Amino acid sequence: MTDGTPRTANSDQEKAEAQRGTEAAKEPLSKGVVDLLGVLAYGELAAFDRLAEDARGAPTLSGRAQLSAMAAAEMAHYQLIDRYLAEHGVSVEDAMRPFIKPLDAFHAGTRPKTWLESLVKAYVGDQLAADLYRELADWLDPATREIVLTVLADTGHSEFAEREVAAAIKADPTLRDRLALWGRRLLGEALTQSQYVAAERDGLAELIVSGSGDMSGIAALFRRLQQRHHKRMQALGLG
Amino acid sequence: MTDGTPRTANSDQEKAEAQRGTEAAKEPLSKGVVDLLGVLAYGELAAFDRLAEDARGAPTLSGRAQLSAMAAAEMAHYQLIDRYLAEHGVSVEDAMRPFIKPLDAFHAGTRPKTWLESLVKAYVGDQLAADLYRELADWLDPATREIVLTVLADTGHSEFAEREVAAAIKADPTLRDRLALWGRRLLGEALTQSQYVAAERDGLAELIVSGSGDMSGIAALFRRLQQRHHKRMQALGLG
Repeated sequence: MTDGTPRTANSDQEKAEAQRGTEAAKEPLSKGVVDLLGVLAYGELAAFDRLAEDARGAPTLSGRAQLSAMAAAEMAHYQLIDRYLAEHGVSVEDAMRPFIKPLDAFHAGTRPKTWLESLVKAYVGDQLAADLYRELADWLDPATREIVLTVLADTGHSEFAEREVAAAIKADPTLRDRLALWGRRLLGEALTQSQYVAAERDGLAELIVSGSGDMSGIAALFRRLQQRHHKRMQALGLG
Repeated sequence: MTDGTPRTANSDQEKAEAQRGTEAAKEPLSKGVVDLLGVLAYGELAAFDRLAEDARGAPTLSGRAQLSAMAAAEMAHYQLIDRYLAEHGVSVEDAMRPFIKPLDAFHAGTRPKTWLESLVKAYVGDQLAADLYRELADWLDPATREIVLTVLADTGHSEFAEREVAAAIKADPTLRDRLALWGRRLLGEALTQSQYVAAERDGLAELIVSGSGDMSGIAALFRRLQQRHHKRMQALGLG
């Protein structure tokens, strides 16, 4: 504020106030929940960055705007998690830090080379994330569940990607095999990094084990994520 | 929708429905208003892209998240304008097209080389845009004015940039001269491209002339924008 101009609320200030006002009132979050929210938050921030970068390669202004809007939606989710963590006296940066390396590795290993690869990645990433949120919601305390469900309700920004990919394959069926391979690679990299994360973080592993029942529960979770992915790829003509 | 999963509303579909439902009911927009909303929309889209790119250069996770959130806010504004144009049967892509060249030229001519330059640019750009929205609001028909005021009410995402720049200069006063020069260059490039745009687009020039009174009104508008910019730079320690 330098010129007497009316401004909207300062989100930092809001955050600090929220923190002061509720810090004492809120139950501390378990290590597993902090880890979970940290990996989700960094997932959103990294996805924002990658989608914004991919948007630049769009062949049309409309495609560029759509992928940019999808990136922006990631930041809305990020900010929800940021605020929730702050209310519990946890810095989102601290919560995210352990997950920077595996998530950056995922994105470095899956850099789209074409616009269609960008769209398939946006679609697969968005939907895998939604599947994961849906699975996790049941295991969480009610307050954390609400955050996860709020984020979940706002996913599904990828229909345009779904439509464009399906139309492109219909128009040129030779694209099919290459994109099918790409879809498999995306899933493979995602699972590799997820397993790495689950193995490295005790709190997170505990949360998953207690949520899913036991170690075989984790395996079953990963299987369900894979099955849903395959179904979606089939629906897209990439199965 | 490929797996029976509930999804949020499809924004494209919504847009198409809004267009069908209201096309006949809405007054057609004047050429000048379409131009104005076109240049604002592309301004938001281009700013999104540049801020997302600059966010990558942040020295801290927190800075990266803040600049990314600012980029995301640009897309929210873009979508408001997109929807409003669609309601009047105008494609945002068509409206934006004439302004791609000058706005891309602005950004190509003002690529930040450091994080502090990114912050000064984010701050100056956000605030100049807010000044411009404020000036324009009075000249518009009530419905268009409302869109412009809605966007205006949601600007001011740059306080964090203001704070960080002020703190950095206080900590290291040798930064001052270089950033002051940068601030002047940003304003110079912005004015150059604005004058180019106003001269090229008859509808827009007409809107500005009829809004501001006459050609001397345009000059006075540009003077006011410059004066507010200088006041802000002074407040930042860069005057």
